[in-house]
Amino acid sequence: MGRWEPDSRGRLRQAALALYAERGFDQTTAAEIAARAGVTERTFFRHFVDKREVLFGGFEILKGRIVAGVTGAPAQQTPLEAVACGLDAAAAMLGEGRRDLAAQRQAVIAANPELGERERAKLADCAAAVAAILRQRGVGALQATLAAEAGMAVLRVAIETWATSTDDRSLSVVMEAAMGELRAVTGGSGVGAA
Amino acid sequence: MGRWEPDSRGRLRQAALALYAERGFDQTTAAEIAARAGVTERTFFRHFVDKREVLFGGFEILKGRIVAGVTGAPAQQTPLEAVACGLDAAAAMLGEGRRDLAAQRQAVIAANPELGERERAKLADCAAAVAAILRQRGVGALQATLAAEAGMAVLRVAIETWATSTDDRSLSVVMEAAMGELRAVTGGSGVGAA
Repeated sequence: MGRWEPDSRGRLRQAALALYAERGFDQTTAAEIAARAGVTERTFFRHFVDKREVLFGGFEILKGRIVAGVTGAPAQQTPLEAVACGLDAAAAMLGEGRRDLAAQRQAVIAANPELGERERAKLADCAAAVAAILRQRGVGALQATLAAEAGMAVLRVAIETWATSTDDRSLSVVMEAAMGELRAVTGGSGVGAA
Repeated sequence: MGRWEPDSRGRLRQAALALYAERGFDQTTAAEIAARAGVTERTFFRHFVDKREVLFGGFEILKGRIVAGVTGAPAQQTPLEAVACGLDAAAAMLGEGRRDLAAQRQAVIAANPELGERERAKLADCAAAVAAILRQRGVGALQATLAAEAGMAVLRVAIETWATSTDDRSLSVVMEAAMGELRAVTGGSGVGAA
C-alpha cells in the first residue's frame, strides 16, 4: 500500500469489460482501456500482457485451484465426486468476484468466436489436467477423460447460469445444482432402456 | 464415372494425411499434396477449399447425421438416449472410413494446437445443435447442454479409442462402450455420497 494506486488492476479490468461490451473486443485498444481506468498505458501493460489477458488472465490460478481440489479429494470418493471437489474450489474462487463483471465477460466471449475458441481451449487444458489426476487415483483413462470433460461442462454452464441469473444464489449453490443436473441427465434411470 | 478419375478426393485425402504426418501440417503445401496424389493443384482446389478442409471437410455432414439421429429418437427416450441415437448415426458414418486414416488424422490434430482448437470448435458447434434439438423435445436448458456436451465427449474419446486400438471392434461398439463408461462415471452410485 506504499504508493497511491488503489487496485489499478481491478479498475483496468472493469474499464476493459465495459469497453469490450460497448465497442466490441476487436475495436478496443489498450490505450483506451488505460484512459478509461485513469491510468497510463504503461500501467496497463504492467498488469496485463495484452487485452486478451484481461479475460483469461485468471485461468491459470483457477486451474490450480481445481487441480488442488481434485487432488485433495478423499481417496474413497468416486471420480465425479473428486471432480466436484475441484469445482467447489473453482466456485469458491470465482464466486468472490462481482457477478455483473462475470456476466460482461460471458457476453464479450459469446460475441467473439475467436475468444470462444480460446475459452474452450483453456477449459480443455483444465480437463486434461483433471483427467491426469484422476488417472493417478487409479481411474481408467476413458472414465477419467469423460468425468473431467463433463465436469468442465458443468463449470461452464454453472458460471453462465450464475452470471446471468437474477436471483441471489451463490455460485457454489448453482454449481452443485448443475452437478445434480448432470447426474440426473446421464445417470441411473436410463441405463437399461433402448 | 465419365472421365477417368478414380476417387481423386480419396487419394488427395490419403496423400494429405501422409504428408501432414511426415512433415507436419504447417510445412505441407496444397501443391505437394496434389503431386503426391498424382493430380494437379487445380484438382486439389476443386475438392478442398484449403488444406485444413481435408481434415474438417466431413464435419458438416457428420453434424447433419448426428442432428438427424437425435431428431429421430423416439419421444419417450431420455435426453441421453436421444444423444446416443445421434452418436450411433455418427459411428455408422465414420466407421465406414478407414481406421488407419482416422488414426493419422487424430495424430495430426493432436500435434497442432490450432487444429485442436478448430476440432473443439466444431464439436462445440455440434453440441449446440444437439442441445437445441433436446430443448425442442422439452428438455430443460441445463440438462440439454450437459447431455449434448457429455455426448460430444463420448464421441471424441470413442473415435480416439477406435482409431488407435489394435483389436477389431467396430466404432459403433466402441461408441456404445464409451457411453456406458459415461453412465458409470456420472451416474447412480455416487449420488448420495459425500
